[in-house]
Amino acid sequence: MINERLRKQLEFMIELDKMKNLYRQTYVLHEDRKENDAEHSWHIALMAFLLEEYADSPVNTLKVMKMLLIHDVVEIDAGDTYLYDDEGNKTKAEREEKSAQRIFGLLPDDQKEEFYGLWREFEDKQTNDAKFAGVLDRIQPMLLNYTKNGQSWQEHGIYSNQVRNRNTGAEEISESLAEVIKNIIDDATDKGWLKV
Amino acid sequence: MINERLRKQLEFMIELDKMKNLYRQTYVLHEDRKENDAEHSWHIALMAFLLEEYADSPVNTLKVMKMLLIHDVVEIDAGDTYLYDDEGNKTKAEREEKSAQRIFGLLPDDQKEEFYGLWREFEDKQTNDAKFAGVLDRIQPMLLNYTKNGQSWQEHGIYSNQVRNRNTGAEEISESLAEVIKNIIDDATDKGWLKV
Repeated sequence: MINERLRKQLEFMIELDKMKNLYRQTYVLHEDRKENDAEHSWHIALMAFLLEEYADSPVNTLKVMKMLLIHDVVEIDAGDTYLYDDEGNKTKAEREEKSAQRIFGLLPDDQKEEFYGLWREFEDKQTNDAKFAGVLDRIQPMLLNYTKNGQSWQEHGIYSNQVRNRNTGAEEISESLAEVIKNIIDDATDKGWLKV
Repeated sequence: MINERLRKQLEFMIELDKMKNLYRQTYVLHEDRKENDAEHSWHIALMAFLLEEYADSPVNTLKVMKMLLIHDVVEIDAGDTYLYDDEGNKTKAEREEKSAQRIFGLLPDDQKEEFYGLWREFEDKQTNDAKFAGVLDRIQPMLLNYTKNGQSWQEHGIYSNQVRNRNTGAEEISESLAEVIKNIIDDATDKGWLKV
């Protein structure tokens, strides 16, 4: 017999399958389609241990990975808000909080608390773990977009200063990854993929 | 300046984008298409910490998650081999070993060794970590397939004994998850989604 606790956990897992059809603004590299939240989350969780050496202050890699694997599940109800959508970003926090309550509320109480806590910490960006996770969350779409000749930036007519302003603070946790971000923006601007 | 080490790591990460168009036999729940390796890997890495309490012997959850995030990258060169494809499974080990050498070989030497080691350990299924990771890798597609009325089993005309034979040993590491697997197979057989 499967007990009530395990049943809730499996139902949560089934609910999360919706992440596979939540499409972001970034394109995958080898098909003509956008990336979904499940793919993005996989990619950055893997980056967390691939690149952990670049965190300039100590981070808990296990916690960073957990955060990254669940940070976007609130989009199941709240939808994806494009980083450069100023209107959408005004209501984002409220929509996502409501979604977090429902989705993590599917779990047994102790895990609801743990998962909500991980998500909240990621959003608040006050800890080293959240700051490092945040840099990985930003750098992955930039790398894909750069590798694909800035396709998503060009479609939305994004200015280099918009990207710069949305990517401040990386140097607080990683000089090396801040340098990668800077190089990408500079080079994408030189190539005309970002407007000036 | 981005140094040689970081450049290799970023190139590895870019190479791994191919996981997003490696399609498996399982269907995602909310679109009429198959699941890809990136999505599958995300889902099971998340299950690793959601369900860690069901490992009957101690496991290192961080290691289990790392294994699960990278266990399928060898399919970039070797392709996906369906669990019930007996011919394909004869040459699988050799094809995947070659792929592991090339793909992990993109990394700096120390990380090549670490990643190859994680993959090898997962494949060999000798440690508790690998056994637990293996159960999650099996249970996730079964849950999806069961939730979608056995679509993939029905398309391939799979027999319940084939599924049973491919899913032995789960009880070595998790009585509870072995029970879930048993329940799924029994019920899918009763419903006629698996042949007898």
